[in-house]
Amino acid sequence: MATTEREAAATLQELARRHLWMHFTRMGAYAGAEVPIIVRGEGCHVFDEHGRRYFDGLSALFCCNLGHGRADLAQAGAEQAKELDFYSTWSYAHPRAIELAARIASLTPGDLNRVFFTSGGGEAVESALKLARQYHKLTGNPNKTKVIAREVAYHGTPMGALSATGITPLRVPFEPLTPGGCHVPNTNVYRLPPGVSPASLAEAVRERILFEGPETVAAVIMEPVQNAGGTFTPPDGYFRRVREICDEFDVLLISDEVICAWGRVGEWFGCQRYDFAPDMITTAKGLTGAVAPMGALIASDRVAEPFMEGDVSFLHGFTFAGHPVAAAVALAAIDAYEQEGILEHVREHEGRLRAMLESLRDLPIVGDVRGAGYFQSIELVRDRDEKTTFSAKEAAVLLHGFLDVELHRAGLICRADDRGDPVVQLSPPLIAGPQEFEEIEGMLRPVLAEAGRRMRVG
Amino acid sequence: MATTEREAAATLQELARRHLWMHFTRMGAYAGAEVPIIVRGEGCHVFDEHGRRYFDGLSALFCCNLGHGRADLAQAGAEQAKELDFYSTWSYAHPRAIELAARIASLTPGDLNRVFFTSGGGEAVESALKLARQYHKLTGNPNKTKVIAREVAYHGTPMGALSATGITPLRVPFEPLTPGGCHVPNTNVYRLPPGVSPASLAEAVRERILFEGPETVAAVIMEPVQNAGGTFTPPDGYFRRVREICDEFDVLLISDEVICAWGRVGEWFGCQRYDFAPDMITTAKGLTGAVAPMGALIASDRVAEPFMEGDVSFLHGFTFAGHPVAAAVALAAIDAYEQEGILEHVREHEGRLRAMLESLRDLPIVGDVRGAGYFQSIELVRDRDEKTTFSAKEAAVLLHGFLDVELHRAGLICRADDRGDPVVQLSPPLIAGPQEFEEIEGMLRPVLAEAGRRMRVG
Repeated sequence: MATTEREAAATLQELARRHLWMHFTRMGAYAGAEVPIIVRGEGCHVFDEHGRRYFDGLSALFCCNLGHGRADLAQAGAEQAKELDFYSTWSYAHPRAIELAARIASLTPGDLNRVFFTSGGGEAVESALKLARQYHKLTGNPNKTKVIAREVAYHGTPMGALSATGITPLRVPFEPLTPGGCHVPNTNVYRLPPGVSPASLAEAVRERILFEGPETVAAVIMEPVQNAGGTFTPPDGYFRRVREICDEFDVLLISDEVICAWGRVGEWFGCQRYDFAPDMITTAKGLTGAVAPMGALIASDRVAEPFMEGDVSFLHGFTFAGHPVAAAVALAAIDAYEQEGILEHVREHEGRLRAMLESLRDLPIVGDVRGAGYFQSIELVRDRDEKTTFSAKEAAVLLHGFLDVELHRAGLICRADDRGDPVVQLSPPLIAGPQEFEEIEGMLRPVLAEAGRRMRVG
Repeated sequence: MATTEREAAATLQELARRHLWMHFTRMGAYAGAEVPIIVRGEGCHVFDEHGRRYFDGLSALFCCNLGHGRADLAQAGAEQAKELDFYSTWSYAHPRAIELAARIASLTPGDLNRVFFTSGGGEAVESALKLARQYHKLTGNPNKTKVIAREVAYHGTPMGALSATGITPLRVPFEPLTPGGCHVPNTNVYRLPPGVSPASLAEAVRERILFEGPETVAAVIMEPVQNAGGTFTPPDGYFRRVREICDEFDVLLISDEVICAWGRVGEWFGCQRYDFAPDMITTAKGLTGAVAPMGALIASDRVAEPFMEGDVSFLHGFTFAGHPVAAAVALAAIDAYEQEGILEHVREHEGRLRAMLESLRDLPIVGDVRGAGYFQSIELVRDRDEKTTFSAKEAAVLLHGFLDVELHRAGLICRADDRGDPVVQLSPPLIAGPQEFEEIEGMLRPVLAEAGRRMRVG
């Protein structure tokens, strides 16, 4: 770097430490260390301020499904601004929001035809939970206010969504939470409790509804594949049974597809892969290829109906929802998903991605490999035969003391996560193929092998 | 319109009715009527699908402070995407988020130096309330969880923010709310209860803190000028006293500036006009000139401090927060505020805007004119001398039966609002000047005069 570039970089580091509050981040860690600053993106890779190249194995938090460097999508937004730069969807509409709502509805299963826009996933979940409550009050069940979610599941951070989020450390600092959050076991079939079969997992939902009292339960919210804990897929028939249980007790089923939609598991929506029909879908992230902040709650005609008559309204809204620039970006992104054959690409190559990950099972620290589509996790264990996991202290050393540092050094951005048992999560851009899988393996294998040696596994 | 244009318009109407769920909107109203579709914006005006021109007297919900048609700002976003289209601020940073955080901190008063980004105002308020709770738990006061807000105030719709929002009909459909929302009277000096002086209004905050128990109160949240109810300005010394009271009981003061920042009242931040130093500012809307969805929570060094050390982190975040494209748009918008002299323009012309509105006092239906900067309201009354308001039924006829329709017909978009007593709210783009004020008066005066005759006022 030239002197001025070096000075600019130093200033950026200083300003970051002084003024930026990073999300979910231990800011104290940067007291004596550099803040990692990403300056450029291109396809499956991003580059830091020192020019170092990283494989973005997490698609910038499950977002950049179409790859980085999508200036074409941003340009579609800039073109829209020449026409209409901003108008809200409060009592007014505008063409891009209308067209995008219709386009989304054309891709959803069943009668999921009504789109309520937001600026992200948390707002979409918040809207779904509020809608469930007002829906039941409108239809004569004012006491139906609770939501059932799954343990370790992440559904976002606004106070309503947080009551569904099942990760204890994210809840405790903000108590007392919105009343009504209830949790059942997730579909961690790698660690089923004695006497529980995969086929019986859905029954926990029924038992919980009966325990709470069916007349108090408004909704069940689940991701088709649960991210936190490490991409727990549903056992065969799980969602069919959950749907039956919801119908039995007049409980709305919300499919939280902030991650699972837009090709991540090879379909427009995750519920299509697992063949169930939710009453609502919440989505965001890949909707715009992440080039603009946008989310959506998609509701079935049945759920929307009581709000479409007389002088009733869903007493809820966000100023920026359906933003014309963001909507134009989303329309361009959906064009790109179609024209670039992204869903087909994922379906064609997910087997290869999975095979590469399965090949790592020769390392004794690899206990499980699981997931669907381009949404996979590796669970790390102390003893593979006994499925023994690490102590909390060991997990902290393994994940944050070793893997975070070494994977970053190797040039692979992924998530060494301890919200459940220790996992490494991989969720590459959906444009990745066999060559990129090889690139990932080249970085991942030696680091995991060294981790095993350090932790004296096997 | 040519035939194909007419067909496209018909299709747009049909698709809007079928698929778009508009916010805070009685969808049933469009069963037999056209959805108003805004297709273009330019300066202070927007145009509907029929080519009709409207004066945007509400700046698209207090957002388009720099006027419509800001393709230049959107282009700044598109240029950014060529470099980095998206990266999150979770454990990583990127140049535009850092630069924007530093730029915002340079404009805030006091030690409000730490910026936590969001994608809108609701998320900013949600973040402030969560931060207040975790702050007190970290500093040895885990029971400080309540928030005191004002009656009729709007602070957003996520479940945390909703507990602060003081508009009963927006709360009831979603009960039970997040615990801890408490409300005190607002600064409606036009309708002070007997025995209450403007100078004593702040004491309600102290009384409420004592009633709740100071060890249970985390924060007070207030807009510098309260929007809902009709731009209630603070009496002299109000915020100085509120600040003293907060300090007395270790309660954090949040200035909710989702509307009042970015020149709306002639300063970067509303707290600067009223000369008080909050512990946090929440903002959004005008930050990007509304050309991209973005918001921010700005915290003082004192509030941030416990989160900046050791292994503590604010366990909160939003994927799209600090979005590089949105941040680039915001940086360009702040340049525009400066280069176009927007704040000076507001300070120079707000007197003329106010004088025009005051001139309407010759109409007997005009009971009060109030506000600050380009943020003004007219309260409508049945009897000006007695300050008699309308019954709920009369107000519905006046506002929604007559004013909504006739103002729209006249070509003026503003808000006929009944969240408090009936008001007409005006919040024009900050580029408006005397010529535009005349244009507004030309539409507003005959409609208000006719409203008075219809309601048999005076």
